[in-house]
Parts: sequence; C-alpha cells; structure tokens
Amino acid sequence: MKRGIYFTITLLIFSASLCFAQKDRTVIKEDFKPASTNQPGRECTQVNSEGRVRASILAPEAQRVQLDISAVKYDLVKDTNGVWTGDSDPQDEGFHYYQLWIDGAAVPDPGSMYFFGAMRWGSGIEIPAKDQDFYAIKDTPHGQIREILFYSKSSHNICRAFVYTPPDYDKDLKKRYPVLYLQHGWGENEYGWPNQGKVNLIMDNLIAESKARPFIIVMAYGMTNEIRFGELRKFDIKPFQTVLIDELIPYIDANFRTLTDQSHRAMAGLSMGSVETKMITLQNLNTFSHIGLFSGGSIGLDDVKNVSEFKEKIKVVFVSYGSREIENMKNRPPAGPFGGDPQKNTDALKKAGISAHFYVSPNTAHEWQSWRRSLYEFAQLLFRD
Amino acid sequence: MKRGIYFTITLLIFSASLCFAQKDRTVIKEDFKPASTNQPGRECTQVNSEGRVRASILAPEAQRVQLDISAVKYDLVKDTNGVWTGDSDPQDEGFHYYQLWIDGAAVPDPGSMYFFGAMRWGSGIEIPAKDQDFYAIKDTPHGQIREILFYSKSSHNICRAFVYTPPDYDKDLKKRYPVLYLQHGWGENEYGWPNQGKVNLIMDNLIAESKARPFIIVMAYGMTNEIRFGELRKFDIKPFQTVLIDELIPYIDANFRTLTDQSHRAMAGLSMGSVETKMITLQNLNTFSHIGLFSGGSIGLDDVKNVSEFKEKIKVVFVSYGSREIENMKNRPPAGPFGGDPQKNTDALKKAGISAHFYVSPNTAHEWQSWRRSLYEFAQLLFRD
Repeated sequence: MKRGIYFTITLLIFSASLCFAQKDRTVIKEDFKPASTNQPGRECTQVNSEGRVRASILAPEAQRVQLDISAVKYDLVKDTNGVWTGDSDPQDEGFHYYQLWIDGAAVPDPGSMYFFGAMRWGSGIEIPAKDQDFYAIKDTPHGQIREILFYSKSSHNICRAFVYTPPDYDKDLKKRYPVLYLQHGWGENEYGWPNQGKVNLIMDNLIAESKARPFIIVMAYGMTNEIRFGELRKFDIKPFQTVLIDELIPYIDANFRTLTDQSHRAMAGLSMGSVETKMITLQNLNTFSHIGLFSGGSIGLDDVKNVSEFKEKIKVVFVSYGSREIENMKNRPPAGPFGGDPQKNTDALKKAGISAHFYVSPNTAHEWQSWRRSLYEFAQLLFRD
Repeated sequence: MKRGIYFTITLLIFSASLCFAQKDRTVIKEDFKPASTNQPGRECTQVNSEGRVRASILAPEAQRVQLDISAVKYDLVKDTNGVWTGDSDPQDEGFHYYQLWIDGAAVPDPGSMYFFGAMRWGSGIEIPAKDQDFYAIKDTPHGQIREILFYSKSSHNICRAFVYTPPDYDKDLKKRYPVLYLQHGWGENEYGWPNQGKVNLIMDNLIAESKARPFIIVMAYGMTNEIRFGELRKFDIKPFQTVLIDELIPYIDANFRTLTDQSHRAMAGLSMGSVETKMITLQNLNTFSHIGLFSGGSIGLDDVKNVSEFKEKIKVVFVSYGSREIENMKNRPPAGPFGGDPQKNTDALKKAGISAHFYVSPNTAHEWQSWRRSLYEFAQLLFRD
C-alpha cells in the first residue's frame, strides 16, 4: 500500500505538466481529449477529431522516446520538465494496439489499459468511431460475461473461457438459448472479444432494440498461438477441434440452459479464428447451422463436398472484411487457407440457393472495428427460424 | 495483426539472450524459475527459492534501468546484447506490485501480467508461498466469476461488479444462497479480489473439501479512490453506503438466487475496505450478520452502541492482520479509523459473549497474501447456522 502513496504523489506532481500541445505543428487540430482506453482518471494518452494519437510520458533521463502505432514510430519531443510528447498521423476509427519505445526498450504506455493482442498484454487505444453508438454502454438491461474453468482431458489442462449470457437469462429459468462459439485471431486469446471486441455491449444493445434474438456466446482460447505466424499453413486444427467439439460444447450444454440441437448452434471467428471456423464447421455439418467468417477466407462451392446437404443443413453463411482488406486483395489475392475471392465465393453460394451474406466494413482494415461491425451484422442473422 | 508479427519477431530474437544469471553474486541461489504472473510463454521475470525477483529487459540505449519493488529500487546491469538484468532482495511470500524505471520513466514490465493496485494497472509478481495449495487451480468443480453491469441512480453511473457463484449454482435452480459483499482497499478496485485475490480458487477449494458452505460473493468498486490517501479521515462513507445498501444489494437480490434475510448476508473488506465494512455494518445491523475486517481496524465494545442488540444480531466478527503489521503496531498503535488494539478489542467482544475471531497471517505485511489467508479463514466461519 505504501507503493500506492508513492505512485500517486509522483502522478500528481507531473500530471499538470503532461498533455501540453505542440505549438509548432499548427496543422494539427487542437481538440485532443483523453482516450476512453486510458486507465481510470488519466488525462493522457489523448485523441483528436482527426484520429491522431498524442502520447506523453515522463522520462527525464531518456535520449529517445517514440510512439509506435500501426507499424509507424513517431519521435516524441522532450520539454523542460522531462516530459516527452508527440502525435501520430490520423488513425482509422476503432481500436489499435500500440506501445512506447524508451531508449530501445519496447514498453506499454503506463497510462493505458492493457489488452491481449500481438502475443502480449499491452497498450490499446480507442479512436472514437462515427458509429460507436452500437457498442456504447447504455441504461438498458445488461447481460453478463462469465469466466468459466473447464477441464480439457485432451490437452491435460484446466481451461478458461468466457460466456456471455443475455440480459434475461436469469429471469425465466425454464427458457433455453441458442449458442454462438466465437473465436479470436492469431496472437490473441479468449479475452479479445470480451475486452476490445465489446461483445456484451454489442449484444445488449441489439437485444434491447429487438434486432437480435437473445443467445449465449462462448469465447474460448483457440490454441492459435502454438505456432509462429509464418507457419500458419502447418496449423493442425485437430487439437482445438477436439477441445471444442468433444469437451467445451458438452460442458456448455451441461452447465448452461442451451438449445442443444444443430439448428441452434453457430460458430464464427476473426482472422485465424475464421480459418478455424471454416475448417471445423465444414467437417461438422451436424453440429453447426450458422457460420461467420470475419476477415479470414470464405467458403466457395469447391469447399462444399455435397451442395444439397450443405444447403439443407447450413442456415446462414456470413463473410466479411474491412474495406481496406478488400482494396489490398486487388493487388494480392488471398492465398492458402484464406484463398478464393470472398465476394465471388459468396455470390456462388447464393446462386446455389444458400443464405449467404457478404459484408464490407467501411474504411477499416484487419482490425477490431471491422470485427465489432461484423458481429453486429452477423448477430442479426442468427437463429431466425 | 501486422503488429503481431513484428512484436513476435522482436521477442523471438531477444528471448535467447534474456534471463541470464549474474555470476558475480554467488550468494544468490541460482534456482530461478519463471513467475506464475508472467505473460503467457514468457521466461522473464523469474523468482528463486529465496523469494528474490530477477527482472530482465532489453533496453540497448538506456543509461540506467531499475527494478522497483516493495519500496526499494535495484539497479540492473547491462550485458553486451543490451539486456539489463538484476535481482531484488528476498520478498515475502505472495503477491507484490512492482515496476521498472528506464532512464527516469516508470513503466510496467512488458513481460508481466497487469493488476490494478496503487491506483494504476501495472506489473505484479507472485512469490510462491508454502501454503499456496489453498488457492491452487485443481480439477474440482469450479464456480464462475461473472461481470455484471448495474445502474446506480445515486452516482448517475453504470457500474461494474464481479459476482462469484459457487460450482453448484447452475445445477439446482431452486436453491438459494447466502451472500458476502467483499471490498478491496484504497488504490484498488473491483478487479482486486478476482485477480490477485484469487477469490474463486479459494472458494472452489474450500467448497470441494466441504470446509465452507457455498455462498455468493459480490465485489464492487468501493469508491475509495475519490480522495487522496493522506486525506482518508475526510472519507465520507455515505455515497458508497447508498450504492451498496440502496442499489447493489437490491440488484443482486433481484438477479441472483440469494437468501435475502439479514442472517444470510455478510460484509468484509481489506484495509480501507475494512474501514468501510466497519462503518457500514455498524450502521446496518439489520442488513448484515457477519463482519470481516482484514488489515483495517477492529470493533471494540466502544464502537457498539447496544451490546445486547449487537450480540443478538451479529453472528461472527472476524478481525485479521499480517504478522508484520502486528509487529509494527508495537511502535505505532493504530489511530484514526484504524484505531484500537485489534487483539484487545476482539477479546473484549468475546468476553461479552460475541462470536469474535482474531487471526494473524504468518510472516506477511499489508499485502494480498494476508488477505487471501484471511478470506480462507473467514469463509469457514460464515453462515454456519
């Protein structure tokens, strides 16, 4: 507790000198506000209406301090109090990971909240989006995010998963619910959707507006980080498929009031979680009826062994990308597990009579704003029987 | 996702050179192991059997790097690869907050998990304790930690709280449970007990061994950080008391299967949360029947307006401290809201016929290991009617 006093005094002394404006760069709009991803009560880091990030840190003896965001490093400038400050170029709306460099050390920003992505817990920043209302916290009935621990025999491990239960789950104890199994991407884990994904707020708001049917969402670690990113083609789906199909689904069906038939079970994922979703659902048509692929491949007619069986069993195929991903595809068509033109593949499914949907998130890349929007769109299509 | 590749490559390149031993300090036992509080897959930071912490960080251009733990700063030494490494003195068993200093910047260790304490999210490290089995994760039935959002009219806010539900909560949907309201300390928040407090594992293990009756635990933000630490005497309990008594308890009773009578409701807290517990329970004898004060004052006969009423209504008073806190009291008797000799006060309650209990955690100070043990002891006394 003594540390508490010490830290706080340090903070109080220097808070007045932080967050000053850089007066020599007049092109930058001086309407910076504290980021919603800051730690409680912190004024820095800040974001302006252009989407620029202004970082500040006290480092009186440092020789060089940089803000590192979206693969660009920006030099910060030291003032007479030893506080370094600097701005990034405008960022896309939504959530971005970032870090600071202090004399060659890559460290989290001590003023930000921490999120798991890029294989580590580190800083993240929210650039306010024009459509942020769909994941805003509102005075409506709220569901719960539940942390569960389940034993996985195949991996000899007690595993954590998060389960979203809708607002009315504890009201009518006889009611049973459909389930969506929702996966994170490579370098991420089961915290992604509940934290930066804002899954509970997206669902609470959709349900409050009667735009989505209430359902349970299960978010487990997809075992995606056991291989290096460059070796994704070597990824073996079997270990996670075993955990999901043989262990997690039975656990959820035994411990939550679920509708346990195929028609009330969906799977979706982002990026590598999308690849997992495609692999697992295509091999388990009797387990899942709704498929969501966010920024990670698509399903073409070539992927489907038996079109009439697929058409009969699969109620929805939803494929989405950020618009900047689609632009990049013009130069570099998706290959490997991400292969095939997603728009053409989806159109072909539609022509075959399958309820297939293609969504493009405006002005976003391979990032969480694309995936929040994808969940928002996908959730409205689910379990509409 | 591009950041992911970049960070990972950086990590892979330097992971081999980290965590080397300091050869010139032969008194230090070279049995260091990665801390359980490290981020997934990280080898550093490490702890040895003496409880020393070995920190390492790549900072090739830095002039000075220090490990800052338990109010002492330790200089780290740079090797030819630019990796700084150094060891702390032996630490008490249990959990400690820490940070690094890089050329005057106080930053979290990028290799550790992050915990909220000392008014910020920052690094924490676990020194393995001899009695760690009582909060070890085991293949027993597990309860859930649920994140809930409730509207607080008095504070015009949608508030987060965590609710522990015992393993059998979703089995028999007609069963109702007692409730413990459990508070964090100053500089902390509602994440303290679920994260570093290990509340779910302590309870899961106690219940599996039939040492505690299954009950619900509610952990909300105690509004303790709205004032500075030096001004604790000015703390007004009313705002939090209103949230707790008029808003949170009715919400919990409406949304969970609770036993709603006074005899099945307890309150406890650590440090300033203990002071809150004392203030609130003494003013609400018709609401709470069990009182737990961990490292934050005690209840003397002078505090009790009507001893026979108190004796009739209060089933358990539990007071605890770390042994190092008790030692310090010999020189500096507790004053202000923490006032009175806790052992003497508890003895006086006992003599008056009240079920009062005094517990001292061996070889710990004002820190989480004292409070984990306090919960372990207190939980066994609860709702034993």
